[in-house]
Amino acid sequence: MKREALVGEDEAVHELAFPQLDRRIEALAGETVFQSARRHGVRIVGACGGRGTCGSCMVRVVEGDVRIDAGQDRAGGQASGGGIDPREPLGAGVPPAVREAGARKWIRACCAHALSDCTVEVAPRSLAPVVRAGLEAELGEDVQPIDPMVLVRELQLAAPTLMDNACDAERIGRALGEPALRLDLAAARELPAALRAGRWSVRARLREGELIGVACAAGPTLGLAIDLGTTNAAGFLVELETGRTLAALGIENPQVAWGADLVSRLDAASRSAALAAQLREAALRAIQALAHDLCRAVGARSTDIMDAAVCANTAMHHLLLGLPVAQLGRAPFVAVLREALDVKARELGLAISPGAYVHVAANIGGFVGGDHVSALLATEQRWNTGVPTLVMDIGTNTEISLVHEGVIRSTSCPSGPALEGGHVSCGMRAAEGAIERVRVREGRLALEVIGGKEPVGVCGSGVLDALAAMREAGMIDDRGRLAGGHAQVCEQAGRRAVRLAPGVLFTQDDVRAVQLAKAAIRAGTELLLAQAGLRENDIERFVIAGAFGAYLDVGSAIAIGLLPALARERFQQVGNAAGVGVRRLLASRSARAQANALARGCRHLELSTLEGFQKLFMKHIGFAPMPRGEVSTP
Amino acid sequence: MKREALVGEDEAVHELAFPQLDRRIEALAGETVFQSARRHGVRIVGACGGRGTCGSCMVRVVEGDVRIDAGQDRAGGQASGGGIDPREPLGAGVPPAVREAGARKWIRACCAHALSDCTVEVAPRSLAPVVRAGLEAELGEDVQPIDPMVLVRELQLAAPTLMDNACDAERIGRALGEPALRLDLAAARELPAALRAGRWSVRARLREGELIGVACAAGPTLGLAIDLGTTNAAGFLVELETGRTLAALGIENPQVAWGADLVSRLDAASRSAALAAQLREAALRAIQALAHDLCRAVGARSTDIMDAAVCANTAMHHLLLGLPVAQLGRAPFVAVLREALDVKARELGLAISPGAYVHVAANIGGFVGGDHVSALLATEQRWNTGVPTLVMDIGTNTEISLVHEGVIRSTSCPSGPALEGGHVSCGMRAAEGAIERVRVREGRLALEVIGGKEPVGVCGSGVLDALAAMREAGMIDDRGRLAGGHAQVCEQAGRRAVRLAPGVLFTQDDVRAVQLAKAAIRAGTELLLAQAGLRENDIERFVIAGAFGAYLDVGSAIAIGLLPALARERFQQVGNAAGVGVRRLLASRSARAQANALARGCRHLELSTLEGFQKLFMKHIGFAPMPRGEVSTP
Repeated sequence: MKREALVGEDEAVHELAFPQLDRRIEALAGETVFQSARRHGVRIVGACGGRGTCGSCMVRVVEGDVRIDAGQDRAGGQASGGGIDPREPLGAGVPPAVREAGARKWIRACCAHALSDCTVEVAPRSLAPVVRAGLEAELGEDVQPIDPMVLVRELQLAAPTLMDNACDAERIGRALGEPALRLDLAAARELPAALRAGRWSVRARLREGELIGVACAAGPTLGLAIDLGTTNAAGFLVELETGRTLAALGIENPQVAWGADLVSRLDAASRSAALAAQLREAALRAIQALAHDLCRAVGARSTDIMDAAVCANTAMHHLLLGLPVAQLGRAPFVAVLREALDVKARELGLAISPGAYVHVAANIGGFVGGDHVSALLATEQRWNTGVPTLVMDIGTNTEISLVHEGVIRSTSCPSGPALEGGHVSCGMRAAEGAIERVRVREGRLALEVIGGKEPVGVCGSGVLDALAAMREAGMIDDRGRLAGGHAQVCEQAGRRAVRLAPGVLFTQDDVRAVQLAKAAIRAGTELLLAQAGLRENDIERFVIAGAFGAYLDVGSAIAIGLLPALARERFQQVGNAAGVGVRRLLASRSARAQANALARGCRHLELSTLEGFQKLFMKHIGFAPMPRGEVSTP
Repeated sequence: MKREALVGEDEAVHELAFPQLDRRIEALAGETVFQSARRHGVRIVGACGGRGTCGSCMVRVVEGDVRIDAGQDRAGGQASGGGIDPREPLGAGVPPAVREAGARKWIRACCAHALSDCTVEVAPRSLAPVVRAGLEAELGEDVQPIDPMVLVRELQLAAPTLMDNACDAERIGRALGEPALRLDLAAARELPAALRAGRWSVRARLREGELIGVACAAGPTLGLAIDLGTTNAAGFLVELETGRTLAALGIENPQVAWGADLVSRLDAASRSAALAAQLREAALRAIQALAHDLCRAVGARSTDIMDAAVCANTAMHHLLLGLPVAQLGRAPFVAVLREALDVKARELGLAISPGAYVHVAANIGGFVGGDHVSALLATEQRWNTGVPTLVMDIGTNTEISLVHEGVIRSTSCPSGPALEGGHVSCGMRAAEGAIERVRVREGRLALEVIGGKEPVGVCGSGVLDALAAMREAGMIDDRGRLAGGHAQVCEQAGRRAVRLAPGVLFTQDDVRAVQLAKAAIRAGTELLLAQAGLRENDIERFVIAGAFGAYLDVGSAIAIGLLPALARERFQQVGNAAGVGVRRLLASRSARAQANALARGCRHLELSTLEGFQKLFMKHIGFAPMPRGEVSTP
């Protein structure tokens, strides 16, 4: 467990050790334990994003001193001091014995500040889980076809003698029938020890005629696929020989600390080289943390990873690669490069196998990046059918592709984190206590809460539902204003809000954030259709990709105007297609070729250059009049 | 001028600044200023290797404190305290005004220890000179043919607009007619600024379809060729478009601090990873220092170097690349790799153009490395004529190739640094005060001294001459023992020595060192001939390469038995052929292909595996009886 020191962290004051996770990180002055953990990709659940409302980030400081924030609950009336949260579900992984023994208390990481170097234990239920076995069943569990870039050859070599003292590389080259074998320098440095430790019986790892590693032990050849989103980063550990996904894990993108949306981060990185370096390192840390935790879950080490593939939108792509972004962040929004890039992992600063490469997926254009290419790759059977099809990946940035008559038109709209439960005052991740469904029953809002607990916030699918229900119950007018006088509409500091539950308020600002998101997405959709001479009703298939899209209620999305009012059977919710696509890129050379062709073939539309975007946006900012005069009055 | 801090130097105590050279280095505890300078490739002349005998390393400490060694002269009776050396030639670059003003004194760097951070001025005559213009005239001044790896294309691009916001890479790709242009990551990072600073008029540097750099200013495309020898490192700055050598510079290989010969350094690097890292860094520092000083001499910066080629023997090659050497240093002497390697300069840790590659020449086998391949490449017209030809590069390790009937047989013998004036008690580099010729006149030794000065030591060519003359004058018997009773033979601490001049002694140990060297070389030569069924007299051409070989007196070399007694016209002394060859590798793709074919085609012979080496070695360890009964008696 090596301490992770990174450039730009000279303000680091204390070290936090997480022995469970085999991680040691640095805490900056003023940071909470939760913030330090997030910045380093330590997978503590923090459903409410560190606002102190959800109680999902419980830790125990087993060594060292911390200060506990008073008034930790900034979101509502649920203040509870440091120490044991009385509302915490017992038996959910926190050993009661510890409490009874009067040992150090379980506290919220988001309310604790390290006052010295600390050793921190995370409550098992507060650890984001590494998922083993089958994932994304609806898109096929394993990657097919399997034609990985990295091939393994078992070799039995003759030991050198004075009569045959050919060099190590030549000995391997001869056995492979490639006398002039190319060697990766890092692999060459490890070669003599590996050959001699393995008594000249070795597994050679080859990539495009280059020897990138030699191992003496048997074992699977591991690959790492990363879907680096603006808000979340998902990692998948794949067995390259079989395409099997061995483990998966999602964590927050630590770059969130530098801004919730793309534009804030591009602004930050444009301001100074130091900030750009911090953003790059934050992305690297996320990938490194995913590699570390995924490998640990299957009993491997990060250095066993022989190949990696990363997909990301153009902004995340540039920030990860350390490419300048000033020219990308302002009109005419010019990227540095668009083609797929194969770069040695060590050159990026990623500590996987020393000889491994990282395949960074090609971008389409503008902010439409390799993550959308991956989503298109994974959903090809759904859109390549000859009928007009829309593929939409709703996220902090929403990408939309329209497939029509052999042409793919793609665009992206800045939808913000509101739909994912971020930047909404009561927003939280889909975790215990999150309101995930809201319906109107007898004029009042009825809630479904994950885990059947007391509600503490609203997750993404709940946000849409809540808005639709509030609209249906007559709490929101056509222009999005909260109507006064309704029993559940209250006032806080002169601003109206809907009280969904005690301490869970849906404010006027939250309504506005969702309005902006849905107007942008809907306007983008319409403009894309107009470019192809189509109208909304011409969409025969509407593929909704992404984690948020997997759980949204299509009816609610239509009701608030996020999605067009098409027949329900035209919609297909496919989950994290980008995650499936990037695993295909990892495991298949032909998938890489196909993705490159897709990226080059898509026609990118820059919304801001198209006439009428502003007009369409304004058209969709409000809500359609309620059908059949159902608007209720208080 | 950035301070050069390197791994493994945590014992660094003070900083030495050399403003003339734009260098700042670290001094370790116990080191003299000369030693610190040498370890960092600061080009202070130190003809006697820091023994305090030659007075060629004069410096002035203009800021900071130093301690001056007492009894600095360990070689003989010429002790002179710190401060102005009374024997120092006046007016040779040391401004007399400074002395008269009573300013800080000129002192020997080899006798000064920094007691604080210091600013050091080097006397102009004590700076190893950067040679400009024509070099190696006998082998052709400029490199031919010119087909460099790196090509420059002048491009005028259209600025991006909202209607055409293709990425920067694509814009360049279009102009080059390569839509899917590959980009070096470092070049990509510099691309946006370069394009915009140059107002879309740029010079693109391409290597094998990869964009490795973009410059907005005009100027030559520079290449760096390095001949990294065991004792000396030579650097050449070449204009890649024309093949012109713009500047050349030779410095000591800073690895000398870890051992004078190959075996000591391999031993050190095998002992610990830290020592191996120090040796690698020392080699890198030498190359970086050469790049820095050469560029400075022509008004360029190291980062203007767009391509580099390095040749070295196998041990230097492995140490530079950070390859393990334990298995190379002991039987059966197995290298890690042999083929040429193209590696990004930044991956080696070399700060030239961020996108530049370093071509590291292929090795032949054993210790016969890319330096000998380069020498063969440069001398092809001399050996590729159909007659039995021997190519010999005499150095700390001596490489020999026999060309006969289309077959090249190559071997190397450990000849030690004695022949280059190293590890000989009175040895020094070819500099003012060095005895370069010794003849017998009237039974006494007559000396020729470089610069016509008082002799202070013996340089390489002088060593051979001295031995031959001592033998001729009857001071050495057939077995190499110094004969007692001769007027010039004295005793020091019970050991005999020949007093060449006051304070310049040629000791019995020195005679032994040369005997070992010449016996190894001669035995190697005979064995190589035997493998081809030839005898010494069958050698029609004898090509002597290398800096030492350029100046040796063939007659003396034959007299002491280093070279076989062939007719003088069969010998050709061609100078630093490796330096010429590595410049061809730098400037020519076809030369690289030719060198690779040569390296693969040569048959390497490991002397220690051949029967009879020991016997032949013993046969040549002594001296042939003097012809015509000329042995004189005292």
